[in-house]
Amino acid sequence: MEKCNNGNRPGTLYVVGTGPGSADYMTVVAISALKKSEIIIGYKTYLDLIPEFLLDKEVISSEMMKEVDRCRKALEIANQGKTIALVCGGDPGIYAMAGLVFEMAQKTKSSCTIEIIPGLAAINSCAARLGAPLMHDFAAVSLSDLLTPWALIEKRLEAVAMADFVTAIYNPKSKKRTQQIVRAREIFLKHRSPETVVGIVTAATRENEKITITNLLNLLDSEIGMQSTVIIGNSQTYKWNDIMITPRGYSEKYAI
Amino acid sequence: MEKCNNGNRPGTLYVVGTGPGSADYMTVVAISALKKSEIIIGYKTYLDLIPEFLLDKEVISSEMMKEVDRCRKALEIANQGKTIALVCGGDPGIYAMAGLVFEMAQKTKSSCTIEIIPGLAAINSCAARLGAPLMHDFAAVSLSDLLTPWALIEKRLEAVAMADFVTAIYNPKSKKRTQQIVRAREIFLKHRSPETVVGIVTAATRENEKITITNLLNLLDSEIGMQSTVIIGNSQTYKWNDIMITPRGYSEKYAI
Repeated sequence: MEKCNNGNRPGTLYVVGTGPGSADYMTVVAISALKKSEIIIGYKTYLDLIPEFLLDKEVISSEMMKEVDRCRKALEIANQGKTIALVCGGDPGIYAMAGLVFEMAQKTKSSCTIEIIPGLAAINSCAARLGAPLMHDFAAVSLSDLLTPWALIEKRLEAVAMADFVTAIYNPKSKKRTQQIVRAREIFLKHRSPETVVGIVTAATRENEKITITNLLNLLDSEIGMQSTVIIGNSQTYKWNDIMITPRGYSEKYAI
Repeated sequence: MEKCNNGNRPGTLYVVGTGPGSADYMTVVAISALKKSEIIIGYKTYLDLIPEFLLDKEVISSEMMKEVDRCRKALEIANQGKTIALVCGGDPGIYAMAGLVFEMAQKTKSSCTIEIIPGLAAINSCAARLGAPLMHDFAAVSLSDLLTPWALIEKRLEAVAMADFVTAIYNPKSKKRTQQIVRAREIFLKHRSPETVVGIVTAATRENEKITITNLLNLLDSEIGMQSTVIIGNSQTYKWNDIMITPRGYSEKYAI
């Protein structure tokens, strides 16, 4: 605490979204928050993508530290009067750390200022790489049943498949979870044509980026992994060249 | 075409998302695309938010030009060999211009390169301002029935209300469309408690920003306008201080 010149006055915790990959996909506000922070804490994978912002900073890089511990540590430091940035890939506000930070702040009676700095989530970056799949109503469903009962996930898949939502599937598959995407596809096939266009984006904007446009019938033939997001088109979505397009009008009111 | 030194070789159209407001919420990639462009075209309201990027550029500011005409113009210019940026508020890939650009490129047999540069959409920026409402599965539904039959919109609202999705309502209300939000609330009340937390964000990050956290019961008492996004929590969402939090676990597996 030697450089802490405001005694016990609580500090600030910025929860910063770095977007899909390199710092080029961060916003100006996010970059500014990192620059203002004395300490940067985050999962090593994400910190490694933004080395230019770690110079001259105290860096707490957690390879194995659990998310809960990372949040607790970040709040502790901010409560002591420091300015600290908790770095998250994507958008901290979409399936990510923002909620955990507030839940823990509430439970630990934290007094620091907390600011959520949004970033590009997988839906933003993957949609851009695929073309224009999210031009109409859409849903995001995570297939991870670690914290959500599988029955509820199935209910949600049924609901959005039936109501013709474009659907972004988060956490489609991991080494251990291989059957959830099989079941999700079955559910969609009850309501949509096997020809329904499906886009798969792995590691958007990164060196190992892979983009596949396929359909429901052949979905399982494509490589899907931990870094993949799957976007299932609605009944109007079509493929043109290597682009996935969901037209925004269902009617003909909109003459091009 | 006097400065066009590549003859008839097709140019590039960047479709650039500027996020919720000022240039501070743009990504580095988006700023770079504007700097590389000889010509900037966009709706006046959005261009007025980023004056620093219009200096020394040819600017085509369309107050009244329809979106279709704006896209056609942008493609024409890019096809002539120029580098042009079509500026969109929010994320061009979410309910915005990306789809129209590709649809028109297809119909006009355009040969230019088209690159979608994602930006922060309303769901990203509004979620950040409300706290952490999108920590679990969510849906986005537009209440505008200009291009979508109202029956389909109702079907979608029913589906996501029933399946306990956090739901972001786009285009909740305009001067002429005042009853759609009334009906949407009725549908949600069939499936969720009147106490369900609802956040309303108007003009996120702009000077006239307004943030309200209310509930389904009182939703219609709050001001909702053309620049508002309404986020309806799921059955687990709660309010703490002035923060809207959707916990990410439905189970107790996740001890904090």
